[in-house]
This record gives sequence, C-alpha cells and structure tokens, in this order.
Amino acid sequence: MGDMRLVVVGAAGRMGRLLVKAVHETPGTVLAAAVEREGSPFLGRDAGDLAGTGALGVPVTSNVDEAFADADGVIDFTAPAATVAFARAAAEAGIVHVVGTTGLSEADLAALAEAARRIPLVQSGNMSLGVNLLTALVRRVAATLGPEFDIEVLEMHHRMKVDAPSGTALMLGAAAAEGRAVSLKDTAVRVRDGHTGARRAGDIGFATLRGGSVIGEHTVIFAGDGERIELTHKADDRALFARGAVRAALWARERPPGLYAMTDVLGISAL
Amino acid sequence: MGDMRLVVVGAAGRMGRLLVKAVHETPGTVLAAAVEREGSPFLGRDAGDLAGTGALGVPVTSNVDEAFADADGVIDFTAPAATVAFARAAAEAGIVHVVGTTGLSEADLAALAEAARRIPLVQSGNMSLGVNLLTALVRRVAATLGPEFDIEVLEMHHRMKVDAPSGTALMLGAAAAEGRAVSLKDTAVRVRDGHTGARRAGDIGFATLRGGSVIGEHTVIFAGDGERIELTHKADDRALFARGAVRAALWARERPPGLYAMTDVLGISAL
Amino acid sequence: MGDMRLVVVGAAGRMGRLLVKAVHETPGTVLAAAVEREGSPFLGRDAGDLAGTGALGVPVTSNVDEAFADADGVIDFTAPAATVAFARAAAEAGIVHVVGTTGLSEADLAALAEAARRIPLVQSGNMSLGVNLLTALVRRVAATLGPEFDIEVLEMHHRMKVDAPSGTALMLGAAAAEGRAVSLKDTAVRVRDGHTGARRAGDIGFATLRGGSVIGEHTVIFAGDGERIELTHKADDRALFARGAVRAALWARERPPGLYAMTDVLGISAL
Amino acid sequence: MGDMRLVVVGAAGRMGRLLVKAVHETPGTVLAAAVEREGSPFLGRDAGDLAGTGALGVPVTSNVDEAFADADGVIDFTAPAATVAFARAAAEAGIVHVVGTTGLSEADLAALAEAARRIPLVQSGNMSLGVNLLTALVRRVAATLGPEFDIEVLEMHHRMKVDAPSGTALMLGAAAAEGRAVSLKDTAVRVRDGHTGARRAGDIGFATLRGGSVIGEHTVIFAGDGERIELTHKADDRALFARGAVRAALWARERPPGLYAMTDVLGISAL
Repeated sequence: MGDMRLVVVGAAGRMGRLLVKAVHETPGTVLAAAVEREGSPFLGRDAGDLAGTGALGVPVTSNVDEAFADADGVIDFTAPAATVAFARAAAEAGIVHVVGTTGLSEADLAALAEAARRIPLVQSGNMSLGVNLLTALVRRVAATLGPEFDIEVLEMHHRMKVDAPSGTALMLGAAAAEGRAVSLKDTAVRVRDGHTGARRAGDIGFATLRGGSVIGEHTVIFAGDGERIELTHKADDRALFARGAVRAALWARERPPGLYAMTDVLGISAL
Repeated sequence: MGDMRLVVVGAAGRMGRLLVKAVHETPGTVLAAAVEREGSPFLGRDAGDLAGTGALGVPVTSNVDEAFADADGVIDFTAPAATVAFARAAAEAGIVHVVGTTGLSEADLAALAEAARRIPLVQSGNMSLGVNLLTALVRRVAATLGPEFDIEVLEMHHRMKVDAPSGTALMLGAAAAEGRAVSLKDTAVRVRDGHTGARRAGDIGFATLRGGSVIGEHTVIFAGDGERIELTHKADDRALFARGAVRAALWARERPPGLYAMTDVLGISAL
Repeated sequence: MGDMRLVVVGAAGRMGRLLVKAVHETPGTVLAAAVEREGSPFLGRDAGDLAGTGALGVPVTSNVDEAFADADGVIDFTAPAATVAFARAAAEAGIVHVVGTTGLSEADLAALAEAARRIPLVQSGNMSLGVNLLTALVRRVAATLGPEFDIEVLEMHHRMKVDAPSGTALMLGAAAAEGRAVSLKDTAVRVRDGHTGARRAGDIGFATLRGGSVIGEHTVIFAGDGERIELTHKADDRALFARGAVRAALWARERPPGLYAMTDVLGISAL
Repeated sequence: MGDMRLVVVGAAGRMGRLLVKAVHETPGTVLAAAVEREGSPFLGRDAGDLAGTGALGVPVTSNVDEAFADADGVIDFTAPAATVAFARAAAEAGIVHVVGTTGLSEADLAALAEAARRIPLVQSGNMSLGVNLLTALVRRVAATLGPEFDIEVLEMHHRMKVDAPSGTALMLGAAAAEGRAVSLKDTAVRVRDGHTGARRAGDIGFATLRGGSVIGEHTVIFAGDGERIELTHKADDRALFARGAVRAALWARERPPGLYAMTDVLGISAL
C-alpha cells in the first residue's frame, strides 16, 4: 500500500493551511488536491505556498469530483452545509472522510451517518489526541469516584473567543455527567455570583477565563475531602488539531465503512 | 522588654483556638488571658486544653477589664459589635489591638479609627502575610503593564463557602483596578455564559471554583500576546491567619498609636 | 451486619490518632480497641482524648490478643516488624488486616501473603484513593500514547522530607514505564544539571520540589508536539490516608481471604 | 518625530524573521534594512517574504555601513562576535543598539559598555517583558519574606533544550538570592536524589522539566508554613521576544547614551 493520497477542502483557510502542512509533513500521506469554493481568490495558487511549506505543485482547485476521484481520503474543517455535500461526494468516490467541522446539526449528523454506510467516516468536535483522551479519562474517573468528590471544569482561551464555556469544556462536563449516570442539564452550574449558598453535592461547576493568546487549556477537578485529582489538557499549537485529523485518516483507511469517533482512532472508546 | 502578654478574645471558637495555639508557639509572646462572652459553656476551661496545646493554666474568663489590665495586646477575630467594644476597652487599657474580624461597616471602622488615636491598632480582612503581599504585587504589576495585558482573577474554595467571588478575590481585583487607575465597578466581569462576544480590553474578569476542602487559592493572571504572568497564593492551613495576627501584635507593640494595615506590618505599603 | 468493629494499632502515634478519628467518624465503623506497645506512656489513656474526638471510652491497651478477639478488623500504619506480628495475630483471630506500613521488605511481604491465605488483607504504600486512581490512570495513558509524548513526574513535599523523588513519584514513574512496557530503571532520568543534551525519546524524567508544609503534590506530564496532558494529585490533609484505610477495611470485610491492593478496593485494577 | 527606522541583523535566521515581522507590525517602527553575513544564500531576497509578512521591498543585504547610515536603530539577536562588531558600527553611526544575543563573555560586555558611551544600548538575556517583570518581583518578594519561606525555582522547556536549569531560571534564582542578600552559589541546590536529608533553611532549589514543544515556563515558589506564593511566567510564542526588543528600541530612542537593561525599559529597576 503506497502513501495515502489526501484532499484538503477549504485549503486556503486558517485550518486548511495547517492541514496542508500536516499532510505534507506526516510520513505516509501526500497531498493529492487542495479544494476551495468557486470564486475563491486562491484558485490556481500553489497550496504549499499558501501553507508555508514551499511549493508542492498542487494548485488550489474548485473541482471536487476530479479531486476526489484520484484520492484515498479527504480532510474537512469547513462548515456544516459544505461538509454534508463533501460527505456525499466522498461516499460516491468511496474514499475516507475526516470531519472536524463544528456546529453540526442533528440533520447534518444524520447525513454523515448515511454516508458512513459506504465509507469510513471519522467525526469529532475536537481532533486533538489529548482532548479526546482527557474526555475518556474524565468519564472513567467520574464513574469511579463517588459524589463526595466535587467536579469542576475550568477552561482558559484567548481574548477573541466569543462563547463560554467552550464547547470542549461542555464536552468534558458531559463526559463527567455520563460517568456518574446523571444529566449534565440537571447538574451544571455555569456561573456563580453573589450569595450562592454552599455547593450542592452532585453539581458540575464551570469556570471560564479569557485573555491573551491562549489557544486552549482545560482542567477537570475532582475535589474531595483532603485531596484533589486534576486532569488537564493544554494546547499550545493549533497544528495539533491538523495532525490529529491526518492520524484519523490513516487509521480509517484500513477500516470498514462506518461512523467513527476520535476515541476509536485512539483505541480508548472502552477506557 | 519581656515577652508580649496577649489576650485572645473569642478564645473557644475555631479561630480563637488557633490563636491561642499561635500565641503559645510564637517566641516572644505568651497567653495572658482567654476571653469568651458571658454564659459561654467554656468559661473556666483551660484555654490550652481547648486549643490542643495541653493545659496552659489560663482558664477562659468573661472578665474583659481584668484580662486587658494585665496584658500588652489583644487579638480579635470575633464579630463587628464585639470588636467595637473590645477596641474601646483596649484603648482604655492602652494595649495593642489586632483585628481580623470581617464584615465591618463604615461605622465600625470609624469606631476603630477613634480607638486608634490612643493605641496601635492593626486591622485587615486577611491576616495572611502572603495574601497581603500578593495584593501589593498585583497593584504594582497592573500599574506596570499596559491594557494589552488582560487581567483575570481565579479563586477556589471549599464546598461550604456561600459567596462568590471570595472577598479576597474582590480585594485582588480592586488592587488591579487601582494599579490601572480605573474603577473595578466599571471593569469587573463577574460571570460569563453563552454568547459573550470577544473580551473587552480593560475588563477584569473573575472565575470561581468550589469543591472539597480547599482552604483558599487565588491566582491573578496577566495574559498578553504570547505570554502570561500568574501570581498565586495558596493557603493550606488556617493557622497561618492566626500566625499573621500574632506577628502583627509583635510589630504593633513598638509603634505609636495609629490605624495600621497588614501591609504596614509587612513593610510593603509602598511596593 | 452491624457496625464493623475496628482495632487501631499504634493508636497514640500521629497516624494512629488520625485513624482513631477516622474510625469514629466513618458511618459503619466503631473503635473496638486502641493498641500501643508495652511500656508506652499512653497505656490507659482514652484513645479519643488523644485523637481529639472527645473521650470514646476506649483506653489504650497493649493486650493484642484481647483486642483482636472482639474485633472485625485491624488498621495498621506501624513499622515492618510489628506489622508482620500483627498479620499473624489477625490471621489467628480471623479478622481483616489493613496495612499502610511502609518500608516492607520482600520477606515482610511474604509474611503478609502467608497471613492473607486465611484473612482478607489490604496492603498499599499509599492509602489515598486519589493517588491509587492516579497511578492507574498514568499506566493507562502511558499505554495509549506513543513515545512521541515525553513523560515527566513532578512532586512537591514539605521541607522535612528526607528523600527524593518521593516513593509515590517513583510509583507513578513505574506505572508509566509499565504502561509503555519498558523498564523504569533504563528510562528514569532522576536529575538534570549543566549540559544535558537534548531529551532522549522514551526517557521518564523526575523533578523534585521541597518547601513549606506541603503534604504532597504529584503531577505526571505527557508532553507532545503542541499539547500536554497533566494528571495531578494534591493531598491537603493527612487524614485522607486514614479515611482510605477505613474504606479499605469496610470493603475487605465482605471479601474472601486474599492479598488485596487499594486498586482492588477502588475497583480500578483493570482500568 | 517620524517612524523609527530599524535594521534587523541576522534577518534570515529564526529570530531575525520574527524581528522583521515585529518591526513591520509595531506602530511607530518601519524596517529600514535587513542584514545577513556575506555569502548568505538569502542575500537579495525580500525580508518580508522570508518573514511571512508579504514583500516589504527590503532586500537582504550584507552592507552594514549602508544599512546603519540610514537608520535610527538596530536589533540584534546574533552571536557574540558579530554583536561586538555591530555595537561598534552602531556607535559609529550614532544609532540605538538593542542586543538580545546570549552567551556574551565579560569581554563582550565590556565592548558593549564602551559603545554605550556614545549610543543608547539595551542589553538583556531575555527580552520578554514578562520575564523581566517577574525577575524584579522575585527580588522584591525575596527581600520582603524571611528565610522561613523556602524558595524553589521550577522551569519547563521543550525536549530540544540542551542545558539545565535554563539561563532564565538561574537569573530568577540570582534575583532571589540578591533580594535576600546571600550568594546564589552558596545557597543553590541544583539537584536532589536519594537520601537528601531535610531541606536546609535558606537554600534556593531548582527543578527542571523537559518535554514536548514547551517554549518556556518558569515558576518561583515561596513556600512557608501553611501558605505558598507562586510567581509564574509562561511564554507561548517566541514572537514576544521580538516584540520586547522593538519596544526597547522605541524606548531607547529618546534616551541619552548609556547601557540599559530591559528593567529600565519597563521602568521596574527600582521595584
């Protein structure tokens, strides 16, 4: 089996450029094509020049069918509507689809599941290996420790982030709730201000910090009497999300059709 | 000058017992008397037995005048009304008064200031050396760094704490605002939830964690482009508040009458 | 089944007193007897008075046989030679033995294993739930992540600690090595100073901090390209080791004879 | 006064490219010239293309005299011998010299001091604002707190770093020693392993972590009985060192000749 030939869609965007670079740098993968939407000012530009790798001889194109026809997989951090269309095209072409797009609706996810009947499709809201591992650990620890351990989720992101808590913080909270077999909706305490009263046993608290250029840090605290366990993830380079996606593509290449998560890629689904 | 003879008021309470122990253990101070209110079930008990130091030969008494007459100073973590009365008695007796009582009103503080015309009186909402030093550092750093550094205040306390953010967190935020010559009221962001939009330059953010038995941890973050400075205080023993008060008493013994803060005791007023 | 009747041996020592308190405070357990060696100045004193719980009506005794005859279990943080003798007596009496004693030799452990043929015996070098859980997590994460993640173990303890790295840090390092199926001896880097050269892939590094009154903090860092996972345990009260031991006793009561670890008590052996 | 015209020497190196970018992005400064050594393969290339800013119309040159003649200042993160030569040329041209070069000998520093008789020259081993501020804070806190606070310096850097502790960690340790009016040489404990005995009062301990891609994190811990103060700096972008240098150039422009440090630039010399 030769190198895996990968298409990057949205190749001129911030994540697209990081993906082009990651594909280029990962042993076992090569850039087969770089796709942008019709009308993009980047059509025809060399994808490597845009990504800072030096020219790769791969001009940005808007011809999806041609791009997919000669590839083994596609990596996609675009937007929901585009992703659904790419999933159909990937299913048609019979190639792996790795989806890091966020904000997918139930209907979008159903469309991906439909495509996944014909191809291996990996979908996750966070492609970093570390965050997915942390999520699995949190679920496991929450299931192991009793409610005498208070669970708190702390996150910090850069000053430009517009929502709070972060999607990843909520994912970690959901994993904690799942481990305890409770509903996050019933137990989440998203803000504290003024006279709050004592902490209610079983609550899952969130705290949000914003500032500077912090890419993303998450800590889940299990605080008991006299001891704390803290599980932390720190991202200091957005490229890690791109590398996680390429790893997912390589993993999926040897799998039967199906809808997979990053925890499958890591082999930690059953942690 | 012999050992400083100190009275502990509220000697049978949680802080009172820690104060008795701290007075006993600090070189240069001895327990002169232990005071509780009339009707206390602890009257007549040995203050050292209550404090776990072994018997000290000092029975708990409700006779304040007698107690103060034979002493060099009094340490007081009681309640506002009692503290105002003790300040008058201390002024009458001409002895040092160290006040760690919280929740003092403007009128209470005025009464303390009145007493302080006749005696050295040290008053602070947090008697730990570390927190007072941290406060001075925060003010200085906030004055040094421009508004391109985002300021965030994070704190964690045990599950029984009923208010948020902690009084100490607010004190740290106030020091940051003072350093920047802005109003904390105008800049404080006490909660974040949902779609917040990007962080506003100049905001001072707060985040609160609650859980387990954590005595108190505070961090002030200055987050700029590409770097962060974090100033942290961690208390792991309530006895440190007692030791800070005893240190304040020893310091005040050699001072003229006046109203002093812990920053004076530390020599960091002008940091 | 009524309350579990527990004997504390070494009841007048620092850990013994914490154990008496933990037994007294844990629902489902009562203090059956408090044992000290013959000649101890504490014989005859009320164990509760020593432990600060108030009198419990249990005078300290040196009569082990009598103490064990009327009990369901014994908790033991004494010294190796004593522990071996207590294991034999517990086996004779047919009661649970929980061993938190450290510094046990291979021969000592063999003697415990012998006793464990007749009784449930729980033995661990660290009785805190959190540290045992952390150890299991570290093994699992080390097995999941490849050698492109560098493993570092950081610990901080109080200024009186005489050895470095801590036994618990070494236990965590051993768990990491086990997860990777390598030998800790071959991979441990216990100090760095001067010109060290670049880090060798696969090394497991240790770093030691000493200061103040810190009871014990351990962090295992998995540092990859662009991200870190950090797993931390913080102890802020020695009583948690006592509570862990009492929990182990309750758990062991319903088990067949055998030698158990705290990971069995927690149900995390197979994490 | 118009924009400050700055030369970057070593403009094609890793730091040089970051400097070109920082000069371009900082209001009030423009890139006057970009210098590389004769024979460099980058001569003639556009400095902006190399730096990723897009073309700036400034080709890389080896003609130092011409470059300096038409400039207000030069920024220099090259190597000791080159830096000494650049200092002489800057003194000749009468322009500001900002030196971030490391590994300077006593003789090199003397040569810089000589040049500084004629021009404003800023020299520092770490150009980040944060680290310099941290250093000043550490000196001040060490001078304020007594020896009952144990001082520890912790640092973490990426896996490629070849020396330990980092130069910045040693600088922080030196600041702590200076604050205490002791010699770092007499008090430094650079490694701990095996049976160390209890911590000696007054020691300044170091601990080193290596792993992943961490740019640089430093924490100075002051650990007392029951409390800790921790002062931390985290760098997450090497560009901050470049920005610090540009800020130093702007500051120096309005100063008389002299040898300055980054603490002067920050106005924290007397903190």
